[in-house]
Amino acid sequence: MDASRFFARRAAYLRASQVRELLKWIGRDVISFGGGVPDPASFPIDELRRIIDEVLEARGSAALQYAPTEGIDELREELARFVGRRGIRAGPENVLVTSGSQEALELLARVFVDPGDVVVTENPTYLGAIQAFSVYEPSLVGVPMDEGGVRVDLLEERLRKLASSGARAKLCYVIPTCQNPTGRTAGLERRKALLELAEEHDLLIIEDDPYSYFYFEGPEPPPLKALDKEGRVIYVSTISKVLAPGLRIGWVVAEEEVVEKLAIAKQGVTLQSPTLGMHVLLEALRRGLVDRQLPRLRQIYRVRRDAMLSALEEHMPSGVSWTRPCGGMFVWLEAPPRVDMDALLPVALSVHKVAYVPGSGFHVDGGGRNTARLSFSYPPLEKIREGVARLAKLIAEAAG
Amino acid sequence: MDASRFFARRAAYLRASQVRELLKWIGRDVISFGGGVPDPASFPIDELRRIIDEVLEARGSAALQYAPTEGIDELREELARFVGRRGIRAGPENVLVTSGSQEALELLARVFVDPGDVVVTENPTYLGAIQAFSVYEPSLVGVPMDEGGVRVDLLEERLRKLASSGARAKLCYVIPTCQNPTGRTAGLERRKALLELAEEHDLLIIEDDPYSYFYFEGPEPPPLKALDKEGRVIYVSTISKVLAPGLRIGWVVAEEEVVEKLAIAKQGVTLQSPTLGMHVLLEALRRGLVDRQLPRLRQIYRVRRDAMLSALEEHMPSGVSWTRPCGGMFVWLEAPPRVDMDALLPVALSVHKVAYVPGSGFHVDGGGRNTARLSFSYPPLEKIREGVARLAKLIAEAAG
Repeated sequence: MDASRFFARRAAYLRASQVRELLKWIGRDVISFGGGVPDPASFPIDELRRIIDEVLEARGSAALQYAPTEGIDELREELARFVGRRGIRAGPENVLVTSGSQEALELLARVFVDPGDVVVTENPTYLGAIQAFSVYEPSLVGVPMDEGGVRVDLLEERLRKLASSGARAKLCYVIPTCQNPTGRTAGLERRKALLELAEEHDLLIIEDDPYSYFYFEGPEPPPLKALDKEGRVIYVSTISKVLAPGLRIGWVVAEEEVVEKLAIAKQGVTLQSPTLGMHVLLEALRRGLVDRQLPRLRQIYRVRRDAMLSALEEHMPSGVSWTRPCGGMFVWLEAPPRVDMDALLPVALSVHKVAYVPGSGFHVDGGGRNTARLSFSYPPLEKIREGVARLAKLIAEAAG
Repeated sequence: MDASRFFARRAAYLRASQVRELLKWIGRDVISFGGGVPDPASFPIDELRRIIDEVLEARGSAALQYAPTEGIDELREELARFVGRRGIRAGPENVLVTSGSQEALELLARVFVDPGDVVVTENPTYLGAIQAFSVYEPSLVGVPMDEGGVRVDLLEERLRKLASSGARAKLCYVIPTCQNPTGRTAGLERRKALLELAEEHDLLIIEDDPYSYFYFEGPEPPPLKALDKEGRVIYVSTISKVLAPGLRIGWVVAEEEVVEKLAIAKQGVTLQSPTLGMHVLLEALRRGLVDRQLPRLRQIYRVRRDAMLSALEEHMPSGVSWTRPCGGMFVWLEAPPRVDMDALLPVALSVHKVAYVPGSGFHVDGGGRNTARLSFSYPPLEKIREGVARLAKLIAEAAG
């Protein structure tokens, strides 16, 4: 029987993330700049082993049992303290623990997005966010970026145009630090301007912050949420890149009434986040393991970024440009306009044995076919140079 | 700032599950017949500790890393074998691992339900399913049950009526074994009749099966999916009641094209299930731990069911009736029509120190205010009798 004839209409635009598909290539002879996958050498396996063993010994019944939808109380307290050290004022009642930050985006879309609502994003932006929002049928409006993050002046223009046509933007989704996919970071002035504009146009801001933990160049700029005086910013983060993604623990920091509504929404999605993972993160925070990870991560990924940037410099043909990220996992590459990075991917994988993520999937406007996201986080350091050389050859051939 | 003015329209009907709220009362002096919470004494903590430690030692990098959205391959294979022992023919490509079975329901609703689609359920039914479906705005049609499960004759009548009014049911959601909330089980003949009717009216069936692992009275009836020759049944189950709910691992068994579409939908919801939890379940299946759990569970819960049934017999005033489940965790109680179990709950908690779940939340038609679900799975055996006595006193007073 063909069950697809029962599919809902939205099933037609539920399309596979190329990033997730690319994960399947990992571990073959392909050098992958695909997924934003942490270097497994960054996982503090021995310390996590000890923590899990001690948690199961001391409170195994609780760690394996159902837990509150909002997250276990002690973890909400520790996370409130943890974000507090980044300048965010929050109590446990402002924290919702989620099943990775992907679930946070899903819940925010579920609670805030009506069909037709205008949601403004950076263009390009995180494709998991596009996936999460799209199910609720918003009108996604992308705002161009420059090296200093989202162009607030163009955002303002867009908002005015929308207002004059009778529409109104409701949400603004941004990744201000080491953005996915571009690696760009907005400076303090840009952040302040964005908040002022949000106030003026009465926008709610969703700040996604998975990467600021490894900002290489001095202290990272404060989160938007730390500058937010009105409760206009909803902050989302995750432990995936800092401890281990397999734990599936993220969190939202927001006003209490938002947390309450998100928790109710979460009952219908996953009931609760993994209890054992919550206890592990709780102990990792209490014992200072998370804080001890941060300098390690900066060291690991900084060296890789440098390797990628110098390889790009060495190998890329003229007409190709790329970003120089201050942190995170990604370099954003722009090939000459006639080079179609979507069409080239099968050749890249099968002939050149190199993987990247075509940039078009990150665009909310159908553009970006000559762009690609390169992740420097996963391949061994010595493979980065070789992978970039393969990619350069591919692009040079395609550019003719 | 009041962020609630940004809420989507659906936020208004996102209402808290009373079951989840009741979890907050656990551990106080209240005897709780609330959540379907496993007895923590059933958790094989020592064996799980050993498994986790060995998994982290042998393949810690993989167990903490990202994993495929569909689930790790080896686990999909083991689960296909596991359901095979219950008569379900499946290969790994038919299995999707989910973040608890709640996520499975969310994904099925997302992929199959358009606004206005008719979804038929048992009435009463699992309230997490009502929550999952409702977000996608179906028309939920409840079919009454008797001791033998859903009344297939009444379902047929309902389907004919729908057809003659030009509507058509698309999905049928059932929990045929040890149903939540009633504890009722459909026999083999009823199952066959349901499948025939589904074929005749071209319905897709979602079979939710969390409880058949502890069926007390001889061999449990075969899953609908084992009787399904056409791929018309989508099977959902979970390890929550067998190993530990805190792992958050469930699964779907369906035709490959359905699994593929659900996996794409899952990318936008949680990306993937907890990797460590998947490795734990994999090892628990390989080492026979899951199979060794089943007789233990039957023993633990059978004794509790017996205690609850004999206490009900002893204490309940006349006019109160209840089900006599062959397995699972729940007894369904019906008080005289004038007794409002919703209104009584605060009194039950604060004065009588006993918790139950009012039955109205399980009803898709607004009925059932004189009903309640009593879970015998969590309170210590010796408290069950006392809890039932308290509840009987409450109902006797209310019945006047």
